[in-house]
Amino acid sequence: MTIHIDTSLPIGVFDSGVGGLTVLKAIRETLPNENLVYLGDTARLPYGTKSPASIERYAIQATTKLREYNIKMLVVACNTASAVAIVALQQHMAPIPVIGVVDPGAEAAVAAGAGDSYLVLATEATVRLGAYSRAIKMRDLGAEVREQSCEMLVSLAEEGWTSGHIADSIVRQYLAEAEDNTFKADSIILGCTHFPLLRDTISSIAGDVVVVDSATTTAAVVRETLMSHGGLIVSKQPGMLKLLATDGIQRFARVGGQFLGQPLTVENIQLVDL
Amino acid sequence: MTIHIDTSLPIGVFDSGVGGLTVLKAIRETLPNENLVYLGDTARLPYGTKSPASIERYAIQATTKLREYNIKMLVVACNTASAVAIVALQQHMAPIPVIGVVDPGAEAAVAAGAGDSYLVLATEATVRLGAYSRAIKMRDLGAEVREQSCEMLVSLAEEGWTSGHIADSIVRQYLAEAEDNTFKADSIILGCTHFPLLRDTISSIAGDVVVVDSATTTAAVVRETLMSHGGLIVSKQPGMLKLLATDGIQRFARVGGQFLGQPLTVENIQLVDL
Repeated sequence: MTIHIDTSLPIGVFDSGVGGLTVLKAIRETLPNENLVYLGDTARLPYGTKSPASIERYAIQATTKLREYNIKMLVVACNTASAVAIVALQQHMAPIPVIGVVDPGAEAAVAAGAGDSYLVLATEATVRLGAYSRAIKMRDLGAEVREQSCEMLVSLAEEGWTSGHIADSIVRQYLAEAEDNTFKADSIILGCTHFPLLRDTISSIAGDVVVVDSATTTAAVVRETLMSHGGLIVSKQPGMLKLLATDGIQRFARVGGQFLGQPLTVENIQLVDL
Repeated sequence: MTIHIDTSLPIGVFDSGVGGLTVLKAIRETLPNENLVYLGDTARLPYGTKSPASIERYAIQATTKLREYNIKMLVVACNTASAVAIVALQQHMAPIPVIGVVDPGAEAAVAAGAGDSYLVLATEATVRLGAYSRAIKMRDLGAEVREQSCEMLVSLAEEGWTSGHIADSIVRQYLAEAEDNTFKADSIILGCTHFPLLRDTISSIAGDVVVVDSATTTAAVVRETLMSHGGLIVSKQPGMLKLLATDGIQRFARVGGQFLGQPLTVENIQLVDL
């Protein structure tokens, strides 16, 4: 059976809030002609401290809304939802291909080849489920992986305090909790879409360590998947971008602009109810 | 018309999460024989960054659940819900008396008599609505009030980092943002139920300033209201305590224990669906 995809259909990108805009930004850079529709479930954020059952339920509701936009592919641009609910989302959205950020993040870390000691910085829920540990060990059999939950880094990124002595102290504290005499990271995986905003701070505190995130590799996986499905857009026009949020579009505009790397106003964002 | 209240009925206490346990603790200390049922809407926390419409909707749903427990009174132990939705909740719950924490907090600040310059530390949503400014100016006509949103203090309290150089730096940063050549606080109002955990840090950084919170005055208002309605419990037995949460009872037990000042286990907490 051949499935004919209308290649002008948008790619859906889903996150619990604004953090996934770092992934959206990477997808736009890799695939500037694709149409994109982004849904941030700001009414229920953060997912990182919620139970797996709630996270899965919220993710299903949010992606059901995205399906109304006739998306040709779904990117789960939220580490927590990827770690908890990727299989449920793949079943729910079939036959639309669904890509999470955990596997691309693990792929990026292993491909960097810095060594076998991996430190994953993530939310409580992501750490609890150990999805990054599994994904890395599938790709590097000798891997030693530690996962550190870092809820304060989420607040730092949202407050815009991404550098300076407060950010330095908080990053230093989490690294001290994660590392000891028996474990020193060769690479650090930014296992939450908020953390790329803190990349420079984390790099400078961690010293001689490779710091990777999922955004670029996720964008590459999106490209490969669309190519293998014959779904890359033909148009050479700049793609359109639609931003949806379930609550607080003023805050989405203000905080989201930092993540997207361009100013946003409330006129750019549409409020939707799930 | 005389309404006969069964005085053994519980007092309902509602919060978006675990922070309201600081208020619950004060009520238990003031009224140790009262039966209490506490609902933390952990599935939708935090309220402090959400829109007024969502906060009101969530608060109505949560307090509707509490009404099933035949409460004789409702305490809204959440500054954000008090600031946004107290009138809607009073209408919704009538004739059950409903008490918020904003008015008692303002009362406590004015009664402290430290001077006319008040600094309110609170969440984004509470600050946006200016409920504390109004409540203070109703009681002190010459008051000058500044409200400072302090989202990082919420994370600090939840992470348990309530003292040390990171907490010091963050508190110092917020005070620097709030104060300038034209404004120096005489008193600081802890306008979020998470912040009493940071009281010592805030006091030591702020120096010669009176620091007040709503918990003790709210408990006093609960007592007065019950007395005037003839609703104080007759029993001299220690009151019973029921804890309900809408998500993540493991996390509720771990973080909530810090707020309640006594260890909690998951057996103490019941999961409810709204």
